[in-house]
Amino acid sequence: MAAITLTTDYGSADGYVGEVKGVLATRAPGAALIDVAHEVARGDVRGAAWNLRRIWTRFPVGTIHLAIVDPGVGGERLAIVARSADRWFVGPDNGLITLVDRAHPVREARRIRPESGERPLSDTFHGRDVFAPAAAHLAAGKSPDEIGPSVEPSRLERLDIPEPERDGPLLRGHVLHVDRFGNLITTVPNDWLPVAAEAEIAGVRIPGVSASYDAVEPGHLLLTRGSGGTLEISVRDGRASERLGVHRDAEIVVRPAGPES
Amino acid sequence: MAAITLTTDYGSADGYVGEVKGVLATRAPGAALIDVAHEVARGDVRGAAWNLRRIWTRFPVGTIHLAIVDPGVGGERLAIVARSADRWFVGPDNGLITLVDRAHPVREARRIRPESGERPLSDTFHGRDVFAPAAAHLAAGKSPDEIGPSVEPSRLERLDIPEPERDGPLLRGHVLHVDRFGNLITTVPNDWLPVAAEAEIAGVRIPGVSASYDAVEPGHLLLTRGSGGTLEISVRDGRASERLGVHRDAEIVVRPAGPES
Amino acid sequence: MAAITLTTDYGSADGYVGEVKGVLATRAPGAALIDVAHEVARGDVRGAAWNLRRIWTRFPVGTIHLAIVDPGVGGERLAIVARSADRWFVGPDNGLITLVDRAHPVREARRIRPESGERPLSDTFHGRDVFAPAAAHLAAGKSPDEIGPSVEPSRLERLDIPEPERDGPLLRGHVLHVDRFGNLITTVPNDWLPVAAEAEIAGVRIPGVSASYDAVEPGHLLLTRGSGGTLEISVRDGRASERLGVHRDAEIVVRPAGPES
Repeated sequence: MAAITLTTDYGSADGYVGEVKGVLATRAPGAALIDVAHEVARGDVRGAAWNLRRIWTRFPVGTIHLAIVDPGVGGERLAIVARSADRWFVGPDNGLITLVDRAHPVREARRIRPESGERPLSDTFHGRDVFAPAAAHLAAGKSPDEIGPSVEPSRLERLDIPEPERDGPLLRGHVLHVDRFGNLITTVPNDWLPVAAEAEIAGVRIPGVSASYDAVEPGHLLLTRGSGGTLEISVRDGRASERLGVHRDAEIVVRPAGPES
Repeated sequence: MAAITLTTDYGSADGYVGEVKGVLATRAPGAALIDVAHEVARGDVRGAAWNLRRIWTRFPVGTIHLAIVDPGVGGERLAIVARSADRWFVGPDNGLITLVDRAHPVREARRIRPESGERPLSDTFHGRDVFAPAAAHLAAGKSPDEIGPSVEPSRLERLDIPEPERDGPLLRGHVLHVDRFGNLITTVPNDWLPVAAEAEIAGVRIPGVSASYDAVEPGHLLLTRGSGGTLEISVRDGRASERLGVHRDAEIVVRPAGPES
Repeated sequence: MAAITLTTDYGSADGYVGEVKGVLATRAPGAALIDVAHEVARGDVRGAAWNLRRIWTRFPVGTIHLAIVDPGVGGERLAIVARSADRWFVGPDNGLITLVDRAHPVREARRIRPESGERPLSDTFHGRDVFAPAAAHLAAGKSPDEIGPSVEPSRLERLDIPEPERDGPLLRGHVLHVDRFGNLITTVPNDWLPVAAEAEIAGVRIPGVSASYDAVEPGHLLLTRGSGGTLEISVRDGRASERLGVHRDAEIVVRPAGPES
């Protein structure tokens, strides 16, 4: 039986995560339920999209990634399942799959027929009533065909997240995510970095790329080759986001470090 | 082997949840341990009672719901197991079972003999020493008779939560719970609502019942048929609790909406 | 298959815990993954050391305790596995094992060869790339010999945490941990306490040891025989840490209570 991962903005104070798990445990008995994150900021589709990109292929082929950050619940957005790199996404069609799809294109998608979900179908809790039943269906090894009609993968919603660019010797990117530690995860790929690099963000120059946080003094800024494959900006024992006053989407420029730098 | 769900106010910074799980893993090897919520507000029995009501029958028959919000630990309150709708509650007898019992009356209850728990028995951590062993006992399929003497279900503690009332064409209820999103979950059943309804709470009139949050503009108040079976008040992309300055137990009146509303 | 417990400071907003679990699920399919705590304060090695001490032997023999609070990641600190009381620790060699080792001495330790971890090996996320693969290796029942060369247990890092002392009739200790509830967990063993005891901390005298929180009025200070085996200071329905303005490492003195006290 395939495992089901859970990524939501439901928090850990209310019973909502429990209701979703109850549906999964009832409909897919024996499936491992693996909590990824339940403190995604409310309605933060992009933060959850980043989470999915991080975890997607760390799990075995066949894993079902249930992701419910769904501010448009009950409205026009579709409920979908989508297959990428032989793992399944189940959730709302609001762009959650954007970053996974860039790395591993979606090969198949289906619109979920709500008829096979929980009864009565609520207006505001499709995580429980629509997505959990579809995830359980897949985890139990049943055919995706029964979930609903095909959707052309190119027609799925995507978030508008700028790609990094090369501009002569310069690399131009953006802050993709600010994590719990205040680290700034950028869109600049590690493997684009020159041997000696420096970065500029929010008017501040950060020299060199460090191999560990303790390469600088506590409280100092540093660059690292991030564990997600892109450049990160950190403050040792501190928060780069606060130090620089920088939020998601801030611009960053990376250039080769001169010999005098 | 039955699954065990966990609902506590232990948080996720200290090892307390881990100690409880260690006892469960030792005494009921193979039982699935399913986290529901660990950020219930400290000592908030009523919040946890609401959580239990939400999850109770979403899980399969035989599930053990371990719920530990226990401000009276070490005092006079009983330690109990209670059966309702063929699922088991394990926890303190302080009213946690109140809302479950209203929906699915408790059919059997037993007082837990502490002798079969962890040694030494602590004064202040019965979650680990008393409740987890009893939950493991049930999950392992052993007889409830061995847990301890019967308690008459009618003698269990209940919280004093007012029932909704019909007053001619008016429906009178209260705020039962304020969730993570600032939604106000009321006691007014969805199926009592007239076809066209409006509500008044804290001196504010809210017209109509919406089928999705995006039926109103961001920042606006709306009513929804709540996913727990009762009317809810929300602010799209905001917090109704803060907008209205309303807490648990606030009164709400629902009336049929006139043609001019 | 042995269970793997997880104690981290990764939080529940980002996908980091999910990446670790993905590696575990891929490399040790079928191993139970048991969340202990993910909201350990950032870089708080000592808080996590206390968590480990609490949970260590509550889990069955063979359990793998994966603990990742790793401010020195990428630097000089070793990556280790260590065996104590027939359970395994996997994590950085930064003192996380200190309190476990005092209670149950480490009998075997090995340095983890990073070659057997995830590829590419990141500079800053050894939880995923180094520790999770080693934990999965052990959970799958493979030989510790293959993990890497032996390390003499006496050479592992230990935190400098003062031991409690007897000074004639006086017991001198410190605050070891402040928990989510503001309880002050001290280093003074319960079984050192005289039949009638009183404590002094931050210039405040607290008389008597209570068997439950409701032995005092709400808002009052009290002493309890703590569930971790040492004296605790609490405020009923309040926070002792704030009431006393006391932090970790504050001194406490316990003396026999005189007949007039």
